[in-house]
Formats: sequence, structure tokens, C-alpha cells
Amino acid sequence: MKNTFGSSVCLTIFGESHGTAIGAVLDGLAAGLPVDESAIALAMDKRRARGDGMSTARTEADAVHLLSGVMNGHTTGTSIGLVIQNKSQRSADYAKTQDLLRPGHADYTAYAKYAGFQDARGGGHFSGRLTAPLVAAGEICRQVLAAKGITIATHIRAVAGLEDLPFAADDEALLAEQVQAVAACSPERLALIDPAREEAMRAAIRAAGAEGDSVGGILETAVLGLPAGAGEPFFDSAESVLSHLLFSIPAVKGVEFGLGFGFASLRGSAANDPFRMAGERIVTATNHNAGINGGITNGMPVVFRTAVKPTPSIFRQQQTVDYLSRTDSELQIQGRHDPCIVHRAAVVQTSAAALGLLDLLTVKYGTDWQREG
Amino acid sequence: MKNTFGSSVCLTIFGESHGTAIGAVLDGLAAGLPVDESAIALAMDKRRARGDGMSTARTEADAVHLLSGVMNGHTTGTSIGLVIQNKSQRSADYAKTQDLLRPGHADYTAYAKYAGFQDARGGGHFSGRLTAPLVAAGEICRQVLAAKGITIATHIRAVAGLEDLPFAADDEALLAEQVQAVAACSPERLALIDPAREEAMRAAIRAAGAEGDSVGGILETAVLGLPAGAGEPFFDSAESVLSHLLFSIPAVKGVEFGLGFGFASLRGSAANDPFRMAGERIVTATNHNAGINGGITNGMPVVFRTAVKPTPSIFRQQQTVDYLSRTDSELQIQGRHDPCIVHRAAVVQTSAAALGLLDLLTVKYGTDWQREG
Amino acid sequence: MKNTFGSSVCLTIFGESHGTAIGAVLDGLAAGLPVDESAIALAMDKRRARGDGMSTARTEADAVHLLSGVMNGHTTGTSIGLVIQNKSQRSADYAKTQDLLRPGHADYTAYAKYAGFQDARGGGHFSGRLTAPLVAAGEICRQVLAAKGITIATHIRAVAGLEDLPFAADDEALLAEQVQAVAACSPERLALIDPAREEAMRAAIRAAGAEGDSVGGILETAVLGLPAGAGEPFFDSAESVLSHLLFSIPAVKGVEFGLGFGFASLRGSAANDPFRMAGERIVTATNHNAGINGGITNGMPVVFRTAVKPTPSIFRQQQTVDYLSRTDSELQIQGRHDPCIVHRAAVVQTSAAALGLLDLLTVKYGTDWQREG
Amino acid sequence: MKNTFGSSVCLTIFGESHGTAIGAVLDGLAAGLPVDESAIALAMDKRRARGDGMSTARTEADAVHLLSGVMNGHTTGTSIGLVIQNKSQRSADYAKTQDLLRPGHADYTAYAKYAGFQDARGGGHFSGRLTAPLVAAGEICRQVLAAKGITIATHIRAVAGLEDLPFAADDEALLAEQVQAVAACSPERLALIDPAREEAMRAAIRAAGAEGDSVGGILETAVLGLPAGAGEPFFDSAESVLSHLLFSIPAVKGVEFGLGFGFASLRGSAANDPFRMAGERIVTATNHNAGINGGITNGMPVVFRTAVKPTPSIFRQQQTVDYLSRTDSELQIQGRHDPCIVHRAAVVQTSAAALGLLDLLTVKYGTDWQREG
Repeated sequence: MKNTFGSSVCLTIFGESHGTAIGAVLDGLAAGLPVDESAIALAMDKRRARGDGMSTARTEADAVHLLSGVMNGHTTGTSIGLVIQNKSQRSADYAKTQDLLRPGHADYTAYAKYAGFQDARGGGHFSGRLTAPLVAAGEICRQVLAAKGITIATHIRAVAGLEDLPFAADDEALLAEQVQAVAACSPERLALIDPAREEAMRAAIRAAGAEGDSVGGILETAVLGLPAGAGEPFFDSAESVLSHLLFSIPAVKGVEFGLGFGFASLRGSAANDPFRMAGERIVTATNHNAGINGGITNGMPVVFRTAVKPTPSIFRQQQTVDYLSRTDSELQIQGRHDPCIVHRAAVVQTSAAALGLLDLLTVKYGTDWQREG
Repeated sequence: MKNTFGSSVCLTIFGESHGTAIGAVLDGLAAGLPVDESAIALAMDKRRARGDGMSTARTEADAVHLLSGVMNGHTTGTSIGLVIQNKSQRSADYAKTQDLLRPGHADYTAYAKYAGFQDARGGGHFSGRLTAPLVAAGEICRQVLAAKGITIATHIRAVAGLEDLPFAADDEALLAEQVQAVAACSPERLALIDPAREEAMRAAIRAAGAEGDSVGGILETAVLGLPAGAGEPFFDSAESVLSHLLFSIPAVKGVEFGLGFGFASLRGSAANDPFRMAGERIVTATNHNAGINGGITNGMPVVFRTAVKPTPSIFRQQQTVDYLSRTDSELQIQGRHDPCIVHRAAVVQTSAAALGLLDLLTVKYGTDWQREG
Repeated sequence: MKNTFGSSVCLTIFGESHGTAIGAVLDGLAAGLPVDESAIALAMDKRRARGDGMSTARTEADAVHLLSGVMNGHTTGTSIGLVIQNKSQRSADYAKTQDLLRPGHADYTAYAKYAGFQDARGGGHFSGRLTAPLVAAGEICRQVLAAKGITIATHIRAVAGLEDLPFAADDEALLAEQVQAVAACSPERLALIDPAREEAMRAAIRAAGAEGDSVGGILETAVLGLPAGAGEPFFDSAESVLSHLLFSIPAVKGVEFGLGFGFASLRGSAANDPFRMAGERIVTATNHNAGINGGITNGMPVVFRTAVKPTPSIFRQQQTVDYLSRTDSELQIQGRHDPCIVHRAAVVQTSAAALGLLDLLTVKYGTDWQREG
Repeated sequence: MKNTFGSSVCLTIFGESHGTAIGAVLDGLAAGLPVDESAIALAMDKRRARGDGMSTARTEADAVHLLSGVMNGHTTGTSIGLVIQNKSQRSADYAKTQDLLRPGHADYTAYAKYAGFQDARGGGHFSGRLTAPLVAAGEICRQVLAAKGITIATHIRAVAGLEDLPFAADDEALLAEQVQAVAACSPERLALIDPAREEAMRAAIRAAGAEGDSVGGILETAVLGLPAGAGEPFFDSAESVLSHLLFSIPAVKGVEFGLGFGFASLRGSAANDPFRMAGERIVTATNHNAGINGGITNGMPVVFRTAVKPTPSIFRQQQTVDYLSRTDSELQIQGRHDPCIVHRAAVVQTSAAALGLLDLLTVKYGTDWQREG
């Protein structure tokens, strides 16, 4: 389905980095759901470049225009069309070196797929800019989940080799505090559990940028309040649906749930999460499996991490190829780029998770459930 | 879509561990493709438990019955229905402890989702047994790819804490040798690049089994011969489609491409893969991105790894809950179980990859292309 | 999606007329729904050829084997795999004339699509036999709807130029009687509102058969008890989903809802259905629109008709072409064929409607709703 | 999938009659296809109300803004986002009578589905206005087909009880002339095979309008130049895919292919289309089956008809119900409405057909085929 994803709640994306506008169509919401446009603006603000040496000098207001599906602050029940204008294009930066394939970028694969007709300006359809409509639509989904008592937050687990504290997957009370703190983090701050680590991270990112280089990191998301029973194996396990969306985010090259790759060297006796009663509720004593057994949520917190590779746009001279002349060449990238996109991608990850989880819950409970008390 | 996956080539799965039969419907193949039933049997044999202390004592012949879509050794172009009989059920093992939720299993989530009507015998729909039809169908896809010069192999990158050599993602010639060797590995052997490591691994698995415990591991897959241009961003990036399928495999809790989580601590200058000409062909000097840029294949080998958690069925006493009486309880699992499923899952991973990649290539080139010279 | 249809409730079909078996996978049912296998057998019996001069001499027992998804008489909540053996193949009838394209059949289009690799025996995948798994699966859906108070019946509105009484779309009480009578009609009888017309119809069908010819007809379906609100415009209007399924049934060449083509010559003042209160319920005074406004059900009975073309298999000499030699030729069809399939198709139409409507209701209300009181 | 349709070429629709804008996302086109924006404007002009007593006084310029996916007059290969502003809203017309359910409209079903949160202004999502983005996107598809030698035209087969000549489905040469003439028909004229009938039709439509009433009709479409082999049975027969789209068009209540309902009273000997050689090409001597056998195109012209019900908006007093007070009431509709939408819907039908057929051809031949010579 290419630019459309979802079974019961579906998102369709369109746009190119330097075109007129980018946008999305969000389908499958019930009628009568409140839509908080200021919260959408806040989410967009978290994704926004701030021109602060941490990210590209291209700063966009990213006002989200809801063209349909929302009236008087509530969903109408039909598809929500939204657009975000592109304002700060500076395509001339790209013209000169257009046929010099930027290493780590989609330039070559776009040539291979689109035969030279791709919109190569600013990465076109492959730009991180395409995550803006994902954030706008995902934030609407997040609001629906929040009204159901489901909370999502993403923090920077690591960046530039520096680590934040991990989410306390095994300790629901502490995790709830962490999630609340991270979700409340202002757009100007890095989303961290331990704010004391922010300055060192900023310094490391700026240092890489100052050297014309870039850094990667790890984003960790926690979801609280999910009921047991969401996920549709065989193929639409909760992990499958979430990872499908997460790997759509440019730069994500790894996804793991719970202990993830840490499971590989454990024995079953250490990996299993024993069940126990907590009052009337069935819980697990540990949460190594991150709230998912057999591809279905078990009511414990869902926790996952993505590996975000360093931005491929660096200002150092690189070896490459001229696509048209088919000769080896050297490339010195121009333009405005991010030395790090990890911090901007945190809200993207939250939004992708909200979309995937709302879809799975709607498959089970139906569209009408979204509105029910 | 629950038990159906794919855009142009679609697989639908059905069955339960102790039902009459399990099976699948594979749709979207061109007519006239040769189908090698002995190669299907060989793939099934690789997935089969051998009763050798390494895996469950339940050994199934797993003969694959092609009910439709194949005639005179070739596809007819219509959907391929296949079934595999369940023969070695011993459901009585499960009756006694049915309401004691096995930690790490889908027992609780199945209760939550299916309200007690689930087929709980042997894990029902959540059993690793459901991967048998995936292997049968995926092997047919693999044969189609092989006829196009595309080769896939999966080895045990690690098991029980012991490592094999890694796939040489950066060295195409060496990698081709490794892939050929792993693909040719007989069903009786562990799929390893370095066969000298096999005995130690077997010993470690058996040791865990002897202690009533189980082990996990890492499976690594390499795909050679893919053309540049496969993958359908935004949502159907090559990584998204593959990870969706990989996370459907029971026990997989992590997926990473290329350097994967290793990217997080690198700088862009170390992570990027410079392009260069190799004769008329555009290649990358390194292959950290594992043959995928911007979600689209670039013609270099695709390499990915999954984290396989240790089998949750262990014979040690575990804390758990009785679902019906809602009381804390202790559980001593009976039945026949695998101390390790990593080695049996290798061919499952190859099959899942074959299905996902054939789908992406068919979206681009059309159904008829599958048959073309 | 070729052989899979549905959003929340999905059916996948496989098989060929003279292969080993045909079957289906029905996905998206809740757990805990009772499945009445004797009612499935009854539905299969209605579709069965009876060797009575009205239909083909090939009579199949058509026992439905539920391989998964049903246990102890209830759905387990996972996909239902079912197969029906082909027993009465007599493929030799087809070998001689295999390359002589039968007019009105899919022989030529199958050649064009499958390049000679199609299973041509008995029409292969294009045989009316493929409707057997549709009936089995659709009957399960019908049972789910019936438990919700939704009733479906299909009668022979016309056959061989002879008409039955029409469904009284505008008179709910009378229509309810008609639907009950038609639904209760035994497999040995033609499904008619006015049983007095049966003998003349049988005589006309047999007369055509005796002359080596065949007849067509019109099937009319009524659905009672649907709630208002089912249907998902823009693209998944109730008419769109139903017609998609109805046009999958071999031989259907027309579909109309309510007044259908009769609307073309009416004025709006005669076509509109005025609303009025009937106690607390909003109803329409007439029901020209057949219970659907704007693609969404309005709570009134849904009524639609299909045009079923005469069976193309006739025993008269026909002009045709030899596909391989590319020469004009004459054809005298052998084999066992139906002079009429209208009466056998009635239960197919009911089953298709049940599948489509259960899907639309499940999109709106969720999978869990299927089980709720 | 609600507002998204298609397997390989997908269209997503959004918007409401009186919202800011309506639009669509067209996905699955190859890169490098020329897009003729003036031809899009011409298609929009054919759908446009002209304020001439034949259609509503609401006239919209309907300029189509291509936001993405098209650059330098060619497709880029990524999704095409397009919007059309709503300019001539006059919502006050609706406020007064908002809770009086308009007979024949979706007012009641929208209430039932959306619980009062629907955008009721001008029919909201159920307005014929939603066909504007379908025309824009379908016209792009039509251009792709035209470059492949495939031609589509729709004429008014009947309106207000007056008939045009039928398409000569059995006479390819004459049909080609008719199709060419109809396709070339200017937006100011009714799309007719026999232009001499235009004035009487216009008079009949205006007469109905003058009496505060409306008229229906029949639209007939012919498609020339299709290759044999398009269509994906069992479920995605050519008729299924086309009818799914056709029944999405508001007011369509019947669809028939070839002889359609006329088949019901024929015998097989009269219904079958004999094959014969025409040079190297296999053709049929007649074309009763309208170019489709077994759900797959056979290379002959595809011909189908839709029944278009009279516009439900009439200015006569009607019996209805007040939804909120739940009382019987009378309604006198205000606003600007069409006494006939048949003529405006002709280009909508052509566009829907183009989308459906391009999708089916792309499934078979792949995305890249769209660009190939």
C-alpha cells in the first residue's frame, strides 16, 4: 500500500521536501472525538528545527491546516485531510550537486526507482520532513488514546554516545512518573528522564556539528494503560504493526521490544516474566517482554527502542559517484542540515506508536468504541 | 489483516498446534513458475524437530500437501492452498495445567483476547508450529527469487551466548561464499559459517535442556542479488515490510539492519557508505546500511539480524496465576518442548524474507515479471 | 488482493474444479461464537447439484472439513481454515477439446492471463465450484448475523423467462413473511415466494437442457434487521462492498439495489422515500432505496437483485477458435454441465451478502461485538 | 478501507461539501509519466455546474492544486496530493432545516453513524462534490491509459426518460467512432452519441427543474484497447473492481455489464459470444459479455451501464421526520440543487473506470510498466 498504512485506522501520506505542501489523510476515527489543535501545534513544535546549532537552519512554522473531518473542535467521522505548507525551501542548494549521490541518503535508490524523475530537492519524498504530517496525524490518535487512559512518551535513551536513564519497565509506579515527566517536557528541552544530562548531550551534538559531522542515538518509548488483548497474530502482532511504522521513520535501522537483543544471551528462567495477582489484576513480576506476549498486549507497560543512525548529511568531503556520468567523484554537501535528528524524532516515534496502537485497538473494539465513555 | 500479509504476493495462515491440520494460501504468483516439491520438503526438514535433545520430542513428518495452484510441477497462476497434517498431538499434557498461565507464553493474552474459547492445546494459534506453513509458502517464494538470481541464507549468529562468525556485509565476494555455504548446510547440521563452532553450541543447548532451562540467540540473514529499487516508502520501506514479517515469528523481540543498534554511537562520517563505480555498476565501499537506503534496496547485499528469546517452556517450577480462580499459584510445565528454537527458526527467517522481498519486487515489476526470463 | 476480500472480516479462497480440494480461510471472527455444522451442511446441500436434469450430473457430497478456528462447536477467535474434497472429477472429458475456447467461458482469458499453465480441467479456478467454500464460510457469517437478529434470504426472482413474485420491499410485515418462507425452503425445492410457480420453472429449465441449451435468471435478496449506520463511504459504501462480492460470483453480470435501473426514468418526487416515525423508530414510508442512503444502511430492509447469465456450457455446436493453432474451429462441448445455475446460486448470493454485511458491521462495532449479547 | 481504494494504484479521498477544501491522494503511479494539467482542467469543467437551469447555481472554478508527486509536468513516482478549494459555500441555507431529514439523502444515515457530529452542511462528505477529487485523480489515470492506447468514454444512455443511441458493443469499428465522438464532446454539450437528441433532453431536465422536481438516467461507458488478461478473480474480477468504484459514486443504484439484466431471459445459445480469428487476433463475433469472461478482460471492448437515481434534492414539500424531536414533520428544501446530475456524472464514471482499470493492469504488469514504451 506504499503511502497508506493501517487496518481500521489508516494514514495516507504525501509530499516532498521542497514542494508546495506536505500532508496526510487520517481515516477511521469515530465522530465526536475532541481534537485539540493547540496540542497538535505543541507536537509539531517538538519536531521543529530550532536553528540552535542542534538542527538545521531551515525552520518551518509547520502550521497544520485541517481541511476536513474536524468541525467545531470535534471529528466529524469522515476522513481528516491535513496540509502543512513548505515555506523555507532553498532548492538552489541542491541543484549543483544533484547527480552526485550523497552517501547514506536515498539519492541513488531514488534514481534507481524513479529513473531521474524523482523530486531530488532536499531529499524529496525521503526527507525527514515527511514525518511532519505523521506527527500531526499521530498526535490526533494520541489524544484519542489519552482520553482512554493510555499514555505514551518517548525519551532520548542515548545520543552521541551519552546515555539517559532507562525507562523502568519493571517498576510500574516509577515508570509512570518517568512517562509523565518526559511527556511534559517542553519543546525547548531534550526529552530526558534525567534532565541533568541534557547539557552534556547538547555539547556533544554541537561538537559533532562544528566538525561538520553528525551523531546518532537510541529512542525509547513507553506506553501505559493499554488493555490486555490488543494485537492480531499471526501477521499483525503488536510488534509487527509497531515495527512496520517505526521502520518507516527515516534513519531508524533497529527496533527492539523489552530486553530485545538482550534476550539472546539469557536463559528462559531469567527471561520469563512470572505472573502474579495484584488485587484483582493479573500482572507480571518483571516486564522483560515489554507488555507483549504472543504478539498481544498483556496489560503491562509496552516499552521499545529504536536505533537512529547519524544524519547522513555531513559537511566533510565524501567519496561518491556521479550518477549520470557514471564516474567516481567527490562530494562536499551544501544546504542546511541537522547534525542530529534524534531529539526531533522523539515525537515522531510517539506519534507512530499512537497510530499503530489506536489501529489495533479499533480492530478489536470497533470505530464506535473510540467515542464511548 | 490479521492472518494475511502482502500487497502483490499475499500469504494467509491458519491452524492451531493440536488441531487437525495447519495450512496457508499463497496468492499472487504468476502462472508457469516451476515448483520444486523436494526443495519444499528439504526446507520443512530444516524446521523439523529431530528428537535429539536439541528440540522437542514431538517430531512431525510435516509433509506439505499442495491442494491447488500447482499442476504438473508448475504454478497455475491461481492461489496455492496447502495443508500440513498435525499428527503427533498429545493434548492431554496440557489439560491439567490449562488455567495456570505459562510465563512468557501467550496463555494470558489469549485468555484476554479470546475469553476462554481459544484452543489452548500446545499454544494453539501461538505455537511455533504455525511457522510450518510459513516455511512451505516462503520456500516457494524463495525458489522464484532464486530463478531471478537472488539468494537468501540465514545462519545462527549466536546461541546460548556462543557466537558464529558474522556475515561479511562489506565484502561481497566473501559474503557470497558464506551465503552459499550456509544455504547448502544439511538439515542435520546447525546453520553456521564456521562449522567448528557447532559442537560447543550443541553442548550448551543440551546443557540448558538438561537443567530444565532454555536458551535464546541471534539469527542473521543475508540476501544477495537484489536489484536496486525495491521498497515502497513512505510506509512500505524494505525494512518495514521485512520487520513486519520477522516480528510475526514467535519469539522474535528485536530486528536490526546493517549496523543496527551499532549506529547509535557512530558519527555520520563513520556510518555513511561511500559510493564508487565497480565497472558499470554503482556499489558502496562499505555496507553499513545493509543494502537499503531510504527504505529502498540499493543493489548491495541486504543483511539483518533478529533477537530470538529463549523458549518460554522450561521445566523449572515457576510462579504464576490461575486464570480462573484468580489466585497466585506455582506451575511445573509438562509436555514436550524445545530447549532452543533458534536453529529451527533459521529457515523460518529465510522464508519470511523470501515472501517479503518477492512481494516488494512484484509490486514494482508486476506479477508477469516473475515468469519472465 | 485477488483471492482475499474484506476489511475486518476477511475471506480467502483457493482451489480448482478438478484439483484435490478447494477451500477457504475465514478470518476476523470473535472467539466464542457458536458454529452450527449441520446448518453449514444444509447450506452446502442447497448449492449441490442433484442430478435431476436441472443441474450437472456431477454430484459432490461437499462435506466441509473445518481444520482450524472451531473447537467444541465454537469459534476459537483465530482463522478458520476449511477444505472440501473434490471427488467426482472426470477430467478426461476436457482433455480432447482443451484448446478449443468455449464461448462465454474463461478459457481464452485464462490462456491470456496464465499462458497455458492454468488448470483448464472443468474451468479450473473459474468453475462455479469455487463458490462452495464461499457458501461454507458465508454460512458461518450468516449464523453470526442471525444471532444478532439479522435475517437474509434469496429467491429466484426470474428464471428461463418466468417470474416469481417480487420481495415486498415497501411492506416490512409481508416481506418478513416472505423472507422466512424463502429461508425455510428445503434444498429439494426452488427458493420461491410463490411455490405454485415451481413446476413451470422446472419444466422450462429441463426443456432448455433437453435441447442442449441453458437458461439465465434473476436472484433477489432481502436482508432484515440491519441497524442503521453500516457502510463506509466514500469507497466502501454498502452497495460497493456487496456488489464487489456479488460480481465475484461467476455468471453475475448485473447488480441493482431497490428500484435499481427503474430509478432511471423516475422523477425525484417519486423516487424519494419519505421518513416517518413508527413509534420510537424512524422508518421510510416506501423503500425504493432498499435500505441504503448515501452508502449507509438506514435500518429498513436491504433488497438487491443480480442478473445471472445462462450457463455458457451448452451442448450445441458452436463456432470458436483453436487457441494453439490459431484457426477457426467448431466445438461440441462434452462433460457434465448445468442447464441452469440460477437455483444453485441462490444460497451463494445469501452467503456473499452475509460476508459483506458482517464485515461492514464489524468495522463499525469491532470484533468483540460479534459475541456480545 | 473506507476512503482508500485500490491494490497497486490507490486513491484516498477527503473533504466535505462546505469545508475549506476537498482533495485526494493518488498513489502507485510510476515516475516519469506526463501529466497534462489542461486536460485535468477540461475534465473538471465537464463535471462543473454551469448555472444554466440544468444544474445547481453553485458554480465552482474547481482549480486542481497538485501539491506533490508531479514536477516539471511529470510524475515523480511518489504519492500525488491534490486539493480543490471550496469557494461558493452558502451554509446558511442548511442551518434552518438541519434536523429535518431530507428524503433520499444521507442525512439520517449520517446521524445514525456519526451521532450528530457529521458535517451536515450541503451533505458534507456525502455530497456529489466529493466526486471532484475523484475526477481529478481519475483523469490522471486516464492519461496513463491513453498513452497505452486505451480509450474510455461515457455517454448519457438515457435521461428523463429519453434515450440516446446505445454504444455498438458488437461492432468495433462503429464503436470506435462513437467513443471518439463522445470523448471529444465539449463541456458545454451533453455527452451523446446522437447530438440531435440533446435539445429534447435539456428541455425535459429543465421542465422537471421548473416543477421543483428532478430526473434520473443511465450512463454508459465503453473502454477500447484493453489487453486480454486484466482482472484478478476470485474476488477482484474486473466487474467487481469496477462496480465497487461505480457504486461509490453518489446516486448510482445499479451496474450492469454487456447485456446485463438482459441476460436473464436469454438462452446460452443466444448469450454466448463465439470466438473467431481476425487476422492474428482472437476476437468474439458478438460482444454480449462486454469484453469480460470469467472476470478477466478478453481484449474486446468493455461496456457497462449505471442507473443514476434522480437527485433527491427537490423543491416540493415532502413528508419527513425531525431527527432531534423525533416527530413527523414537513420539509421544504432550500439551497442550490441540481434537477439532474446525470450529465455531470458522465466524466465521474469515466474517471472511476480509469482508476479501476489502471489498478488492475498495474497488478498484472507492475508499476514500472506504466512508463514503458
